[in-house]
Amino acid sequence: MQKLQTVREQYDRYCAKMRKIADVKNATAVLQWDQETYLPAGGAAFRAGQLATLSTLAHEMFADESLGTLLHGLAEAEGLDAREHNNVLLTLEDYEKNKKYSAAFVAKLSQATSAAYHAWIQARKENDFHLYEASLQQMILLKREEAALLGYKGHPYDALLNDYEKGANTAMLDTIFDNLRGELGTLLQKVLSRPPADEAFMHISYDKGRQWAFGLSLLEKMGFDFNHGRQDISEHPFTTSFSPQDVRVTTRINEHDFANMIWSCIHEGGHALYEQGLDATQYGLPCGEAASLSIHESQSRLWENCVGRSMAYWQYHYPDLQAAFPQQLKDVPLAAFYKAINRVKPSLIRTEADELTYHFHVMIRYEIEKQVLEGTLNAPDLPVAWNEWYARYLDVKVPDDRQGVLQDIHWSHGSFGYFPTYSLGSLYAAQFFAKATTDIITLEDDVARGNYAVLLQWLRENIHRHGRFYTSEELCRKVTGAGLDAAYFLRYAEKKFDID
Amino acid sequence: MQKLQTVREQYDRYCAKMRKIADVKNATAVLQWDQETYLPAGGAAFRAGQLATLSTLAHEMFADESLGTLLHGLAEAEGLDAREHNNVLLTLEDYEKNKKYSAAFVAKLSQATSAAYHAWIQARKENDFHLYEASLQQMILLKREEAALLGYKGHPYDALLNDYEKGANTAMLDTIFDNLRGELGTLLQKVLSRPPADEAFMHISYDKGRQWAFGLSLLEKMGFDFNHGRQDISEHPFTTSFSPQDVRVTTRINEHDFANMIWSCIHEGGHALYEQGLDATQYGLPCGEAASLSIHESQSRLWENCVGRSMAYWQYHYPDLQAAFPQQLKDVPLAAFYKAINRVKPSLIRTEADELTYHFHVMIRYEIEKQVLEGTLNAPDLPVAWNEWYARYLDVKVPDDRQGVLQDIHWSHGSFGYFPTYSLGSLYAAQFFAKATTDIITLEDDVARGNYAVLLQWLRENIHRHGRFYTSEELCRKVTGAGLDAAYFLRYAEKKFDID
Repeated sequence: MQKLQTVREQYDRYCAKMRKIADVKNATAVLQWDQETYLPAGGAAFRAGQLATLSTLAHEMFADESLGTLLHGLAEAEGLDAREHNNVLLTLEDYEKNKKYSAAFVAKLSQATSAAYHAWIQARKENDFHLYEASLQQMILLKREEAALLGYKGHPYDALLNDYEKGANTAMLDTIFDNLRGELGTLLQKVLSRPPADEAFMHISYDKGRQWAFGLSLLEKMGFDFNHGRQDISEHPFTTSFSPQDVRVTTRINEHDFANMIWSCIHEGGHALYEQGLDATQYGLPCGEAASLSIHESQSRLWENCVGRSMAYWQYHYPDLQAAFPQQLKDVPLAAFYKAINRVKPSLIRTEADELTYHFHVMIRYEIEKQVLEGTLNAPDLPVAWNEWYARYLDVKVPDDRQGVLQDIHWSHGSFGYFPTYSLGSLYAAQFFAKATTDIITLEDDVARGNYAVLLQWLRENIHRHGRFYTSEELCRKVTGAGLDAAYFLRYAEKKFDID
Repeated sequence: MQKLQTVREQYDRYCAKMRKIADVKNATAVLQWDQETYLPAGGAAFRAGQLATLSTLAHEMFADESLGTLLHGLAEAEGLDAREHNNVLLTLEDYEKNKKYSAAFVAKLSQATSAAYHAWIQARKENDFHLYEASLQQMILLKREEAALLGYKGHPYDALLNDYEKGANTAMLDTIFDNLRGELGTLLQKVLSRPPADEAFMHISYDKGRQWAFGLSLLEKMGFDFNHGRQDISEHPFTTSFSPQDVRVTTRINEHDFANMIWSCIHEGGHALYEQGLDATQYGLPCGEAASLSIHESQSRLWENCVGRSMAYWQYHYPDLQAAFPQQLKDVPLAAFYKAINRVKPSLIRTEADELTYHFHVMIRYEIEKQVLEGTLNAPDLPVAWNEWYARYLDVKVPDDRQGVLQDIHWSHGSFGYFPTYSLGSLYAAQFFAKATTDIITLEDDVARGNYAVLLQWLRENIHRHGRFYTSEELCRKVTGAGLDAAYFLRYAEKKFDID
């Protein structure tokens, strides 16, 4: 007869299982990172198979019934502390959701992702949407299937949204976006009526090697720990993590657009500081994971915009940037630089958009994704739909698909329902930063002296270390005393941009 | 009732299982490659755990009893072609061997390997063997345990040898090495009695970036396919493969020793051409794997020495090398360069040894490893033993452990029994190259014109495409008409070095 296990033994067994599953998922992440940084093109086919096998394995390990039994037992057990109990409940929630996916579906999704990703790379390179169309449609069909198997009450899009942002739904997002569209629209009209800042100096030639070195120096200064992470080059910048002790960021460098590199470094650096700040003792457990995508994005946005586009930040860093590029910047005073990097202008590319128009880029994707999930839009319709929304929301004409529907990696990864978390992240960032500014009375001076240690400590303490212990909404209440409120972002935007 | 499967269905099921296992093993290889190229130092601990988990998984998948049943059935079945039948028999052999390892032992070995590897890196950096001693001893104990569980008839070393070289044993190696020691000893005395070539020019400064570019150009010229592979930098050069369509080589660059980079590129390039030449349709199956370590080494040695240190090779490449380093090489004529790169001199570092003394480096490790397996030597004894053997076999005094017992990565990887395959590879290389020279009457002229396509085609046809279909000995007979015969190497060496 099997010896009855104590709650402690059961909890340890649960942890061991979860760490094994995390090992397989993190191995998958290493293969994906390699796929986007170093994989030779001809190696893509076998890599797709390897990723499918690992995804299926992780899925099977997590779908194991003995884990379910263990979780149900532990969920009712006495003697766990609050964090342990929460780990169990969150895992049980994930477990029940995971059970809805068959191993076959997981493998199919993994294969489709690799195929779509490589097709997207190719299509983007050749500026030819048709090269991507079939594999994107395949992905869309799988995503509709996924929404159905996950189940939803209102809109099918809610099923996918919830995967990225627990508790979010189209009703809530429609309200937030309607509000933003109105308020930001008004602010935008005001800002655009003023003469635009001169930014011609930002598009002359900046040596790529020096850009790379400058980007690394910004990351280091922020507190990115290079003993527990590194930066590489990829087509599309991203952050990934194989443990809190191995966090990888990527960037891309464009000779004629150094801003692209700088704010991608700061943005991914913000994500990476969150990952490096997670509790390593909780590896593999929910409390060792980020709270949510929107909270993750709040960290990148807080660094990218609230810090990295502030006057204080550049008071400190601009002399170094000028020293790295004396020819290009010697005649550009700080005030002109600041104006240029905060220039507001409706444009084509989301990742290069200013803080105000950015939300419109997200709303466009949101509207399209809802229709895709409803079944009223299919892959062949997307270029036209895309261009129509850009004309409507941002009054810009999309000249080609590379600058249009082909610009984002997300759909090739199957990430439908992901974009709204960018806007939510921006709103959370403004609310957190307002609170940090109240808590740390020297914050602006600290930033102006290149001292980010106090801010990082505040983020570690208030946000990073908790992992998934709180939901986005709970965390927001705990940190700021109130639930998500777009007013913080609107006040921040008005203060910064409504300067008449 | 389950429908009776046809032999064809069973064989397909076997293939599918093997490909899944290969996916996990190749994922492990990606994580190991990353560990030795890009992993930030602080990420080592979690990576060790991830590697252990994947090794255990692959082991468990391969130990699955349903696979055993399938294999036993297929081994007796009619209707498979010769290659399919051989795949089944070889897999069954591997299966029976794998069953001797418990999952716990595999995990222990993987953990110990990661620990020993990182300790070795550190010890080498600090030139302090003590930092490595404990984890090496741990590895030694595991290797003795492994020899016992694998079983052996004669010497415990045979158990480990056979893991790398099926059919090899200490009796056979003692004979080969005794013979080589005598014959090469005589040749060595003769060569060393002549005035040494001037090689001072090889140790002045050579720009690292240019070395890197030149190394890549050599790889490309050899026929290395960069669409299905890449080169990176690591502490110790190696070749690894994630499929025949993704083969990775690494090199290291020393500003004051460009030879180190050049012949490591050619050597690893030879390994890589073999891997790229394996049959992709046989992915995951024995006939999609290299025949053996010694045959693998025959490919690297053939390119490194028979081709890459020949006068013909440098007739073609030396002008390019001179153009890359005009200051360093403008006053060094080809004849002097050729003499310098073939200088024979007893030395400390195996990987930098000339073709003659190389075998003595191997014999030293062979003698030490035998004693380690016998239990008469332990980790703490190794520095002294090492230095004694170097005095005895090569008459050189080892000044410190970095240039002595700490130089090789192998023991940290648990690779005891591996070194002898280097000498065997060298002997096979000479025998294959003699045959290729007979078969391709224009070979020397082709090489002198930088045309290696015919040689590569010969290797693909005669060696690469067969995978593990033949054993080393069978392959040697099939290609050259005779079993392994050290006389080929001795004749090659005499022709090249006994130039009086």
